[in-house]
Amino acid sequence: MDDKLIIGGMELENRLFIGTGKFPNKKIIPEVVKKSGSKVITMALRRVDLNSKQENILDYIPKDCILLPNTSGARNAEEAVRIAKLARAMGCGNWIKIEVISDNKYLLPDNYETIKATEMLAKEGFIVLPYMNPDLMVAKSLVNAGAAAVMPLGAPIGTNRGLQTKELIRILIEEIDIPIIVDAGIGKPSHAAQAMEMGAAAVLVNTAIATAKDPVKMAHAFNLSVKAGRLAYISKIAPEKKYAEASSPLTGFLNE
Amino acid sequence: MDDKLIIGGMELENRLFIGTGKFPNKKIIPEVVKKSGSKVITMALRRVDLNSKQENILDYIPKDCILLPNTSGARNAEEAVRIAKLARAMGCGNWIKIEVISDNKYLLPDNYETIKATEMLAKEGFIVLPYMNPDLMVAKSLVNAGAAAVMPLGAPIGTNRGLQTKELIRILIEEIDIPIIVDAGIGKPSHAAQAMEMGAAAVLVNTAIATAKDPVKMAHAFNLSVKAGRLAYISKIAPEKKYAEASSPLTGFLNE
Amino acid sequence: MDDKLIIGGMELENRLFIGTGKFPNKKIIPEVVKKSGSKVITMALRRVDLNSKQENILDYIPKDCILLPNTSGARNAEEAVRIAKLARAMGCGNWIKIEVISDNKYLLPDNYETIKATEMLAKEGFIVLPYMNPDLMVAKSLVNAGAAAVMPLGAPIGTNRGLQTKELIRILIEEIDIPIIVDAGIGKPSHAAQAMEMGAAAVLVNTAIATAKDPVKMAHAFNLSVKAGRLAYISKIAPEKKYAEASSPLTGFLNE
Amino acid sequence: MDDKLIIGGMELENRLFIGTGKFPNKKIIPEVVKKSGSKVITMALRRVDLNSKQENILDYIPKDCILLPNTSGARNAEEAVRIAKLARAMGCGNWIKIEVISDNKYLLPDNYETIKATEMLAKEGFIVLPYMNPDLMVAKSLVNAGAAAVMPLGAPIGTNRGLQTKELIRILIEEIDIPIIVDAGIGKPSHAAQAMEMGAAAVLVNTAIATAKDPVKMAHAFNLSVKAGRLAYISKIAPEKKYAEASSPLTGFLNE
Repeated sequence: MDDKLIIGGMELENRLFIGTGKFPNKKIIPEVVKKSGSKVITMALRRVDLNSKQENILDYIPKDCILLPNTSGARNAEEAVRIAKLARAMGCGNWIKIEVISDNKYLLPDNYETIKATEMLAKEGFIVLPYMNPDLMVAKSLVNAGAAAVMPLGAPIGTNRGLQTKELIRILIEEIDIPIIVDAGIGKPSHAAQAMEMGAAAVLVNTAIATAKDPVKMAHAFNLSVKAGRLAYISKIAPEKKYAEASSPLTGFLNE
Repeated sequence: MDDKLIIGGMELENRLFIGTGKFPNKKIIPEVVKKSGSKVITMALRRVDLNSKQENILDYIPKDCILLPNTSGARNAEEAVRIAKLARAMGCGNWIKIEVISDNKYLLPDNYETIKATEMLAKEGFIVLPYMNPDLMVAKSLVNAGAAAVMPLGAPIGTNRGLQTKELIRILIEEIDIPIIVDAGIGKPSHAAQAMEMGAAAVLVNTAIATAKDPVKMAHAFNLSVKAGRLAYISKIAPEKKYAEASSPLTGFLNE
Repeated sequence: MDDKLIIGGMELENRLFIGTGKFPNKKIIPEVVKKSGSKVITMALRRVDLNSKQENILDYIPKDCILLPNTSGARNAEEAVRIAKLARAMGCGNWIKIEVISDNKYLLPDNYETIKATEMLAKEGFIVLPYMNPDLMVAKSLVNAGAAAVMPLGAPIGTNRGLQTKELIRILIEEIDIPIIVDAGIGKPSHAAQAMEMGAAAVLVNTAIATAKDPVKMAHAFNLSVKAGRLAYISKIAPEKKYAEASSPLTGFLNE
Repeated sequence: MDDKLIIGGMELENRLFIGTGKFPNKKIIPEVVKKSGSKVITMALRRVDLNSKQENILDYIPKDCILLPNTSGARNAEEAVRIAKLARAMGCGNWIKIEVISDNKYLLPDNYETIKATEMLAKEGFIVLPYMNPDLMVAKSLVNAGAAAVMPLGAPIGTNRGLQTKELIRILIEEIDIPIIVDAGIGKPSHAAQAMEMGAAAVLVNTAIATAKDPVKMAHAFNLSVKAGRLAYISKIAPEKKYAEASSPLTGFLNE
């Protein structure tokens, strides 16, 4: 099948991105990554400590994955830029997920600081994936600022509430030419499938996998549901109808 | 994984059942069946004509599948029973999906006639899967009547509107001990995943596959989404939360 | 405005029916009834004790209201019929709301026993309003059995979950010629408005009023919302659109 | 009842704001205003032409209403400021609804230009009500910029699709201390009631009234539903429950 997702010049064979936070036990991360099929893994830079003798989150990420360090902890564009540069200097590569958050209750992003950070980092050669509150005008600004994709939230981080912002995301998918990756709020495989059926390019899932009772199986479930949603999008979903239509012939069977 | 679905003494390895109506071209049915992974295939008896020199729907169904002829066209219990017996006599086996429908606009089932037909056919050794309007008391009666599973509708047949009766189906899953198979209304893989995440034992899909632009890919999509939903159910989905919870450490990163 | 609701030959000026259960203090019931505007009041017969020296629920119901005793406690048609006759004998009039319930967890009605009770009581001259699980075929049977209206549930009694069965109720409204009164599950005025906007003839509310912090104000809120929903239905609601349409002229204002 | 809405120092007795666009016949506007109960009326400045000998939209607005001219047509902050000043100079008072829109398909607002315009106009003594894409950080900026209220959209203008952004609006209501007025997308009285039940301070409705078959009755319907939603909010809505709770005593009635 010739349905490639290309971001930052890389061809990605899997449309599920996963995060590494909240796992009860880091040792299961390699198996989670494997079953998820994911090739793009996000982690907070803070967890990456190359000098430490303690275990490092990077130890658990397969070498063939793209690292997507995030700027979690940044409260403005400058801090995000500093974290991004630090990440690159530490060998995490040049992909960066921008998170600029100053609201500690809902962890909602600051779209304008995010635009600023995107612009600065894109100029410095980063592949920039900004986390955003879904907003068409902001998405257009992010495209102009050089974002490689935009990552609108479905619901606040960690809430598992699904696509609460579905209508705004639908508009982004319709109007924006770079990939739309739904991030945050996805709590079940059906949510991920729904995003993909709408035409999202990919989804990022962390909490729903990490806090499931069986994270490995749940990673597998998301892997399948993302593929299912993408296949359905490509296969063109038949429209909803108001009245019933028989799948089987209905009348006269016994009277003939 | 030891997660078996057993109906009528048969162990089913796939929880997607598919129908054979509405396909623009019957020749693709074998490929659809293959990609769907389905081992239980429903068809209207009318399409089965063993004496015909014309092509027969059975010709397109792989031999390792269980046939689930339906009584489409029956307007009461007696007609359903006659069709079921005819199906068995014609070599379709002893599985039967009861459809008793006298409403031609919404094709909604007649629960009461369905109970009667279930009772009569179960006594005659059929494996009976009745299509029903979701209703806890009726489901209990169907269990008492000898149903092997119950098939509540998500929305009227062919409407692709998803789980409009979700709350009533949820109650059936919680209260009824035989398998609940969601039938009718499932229009997208995310709908199927949602049913499975709730604990449905299986889903039956026809229109959404048959009327997709690419039925073979769509069959594959449903195959994956049903597996995804089941895996999620088994892995125990984490609950929804009102407030956000960081996946990544949030504060003080640059200040340390 | 010439928009009358006629049930059992009575012209009802208000489309909100209310129940009398669960109030923390019965003394507020007269004020609740007044603010609700309701002229049809339901109560469990058990609460009606004409011989008692203790307070009686009927003492709190204004004399100009129609009493709608319900058969709560009945587990089959016969018990419902006995309770109905008892109610009439006790002077509660000839309106009866049939509730036949044998499920103690979800309190879901038994549609078939309800049909039987409806038929028996209609023949005896009762004005019969059966509580039902929404089901088109059953509603047709209830019409044939002589029901004066049908009362489909929106969600299980007391759950405040709104119109979970919206699609099934919509079909009843479209197909059934007697009044459809949505009963059970209505938890907020917006739910009541939604039912009325769809074309329901009336709604019955109990828990949402009785368990609000201020039941009198909440009764007033439901009174207004039911009127609002009915007025909207009569005024013909404009359809939803996918794309925006300016309310105000948009372009060129400053350039002219 | 002591439940006042105060904006810009004015005490408003009605929480429904209405718009004057799209009416098939301007002559019905006075009756619409009257039945709506609204005391705050918005109009595009372009429709206000004091020098014209032709009819002027202001002729149709009762004198006791607050005019809320909007900056429709503005594509950036500067244009919005110019329109606002023009409105004041023309005698429309000092209330201004900021609309800065450069997207002609979904008419989605430009939050950033909106913040700038708000700041400039608040400094000049305007009572500023900005139309916005719901976004917590932007709402905080609007508060800091001197907004008198914020007006998040429920869905794109004129779509009648209701509270598609419900979750984001809920967060604004919880976190922002100035009035939240839901604007755009409200297509039915039940949508308005829903916004008010959540704690919105007011709603603005235009298309749903102007394009109803009977705009006068629909204005009345919205008047009632907004009051209903507010009353319900004040009366404290009882929570949803998973399991049923009887309103009436259930068991043993006939056995005692």
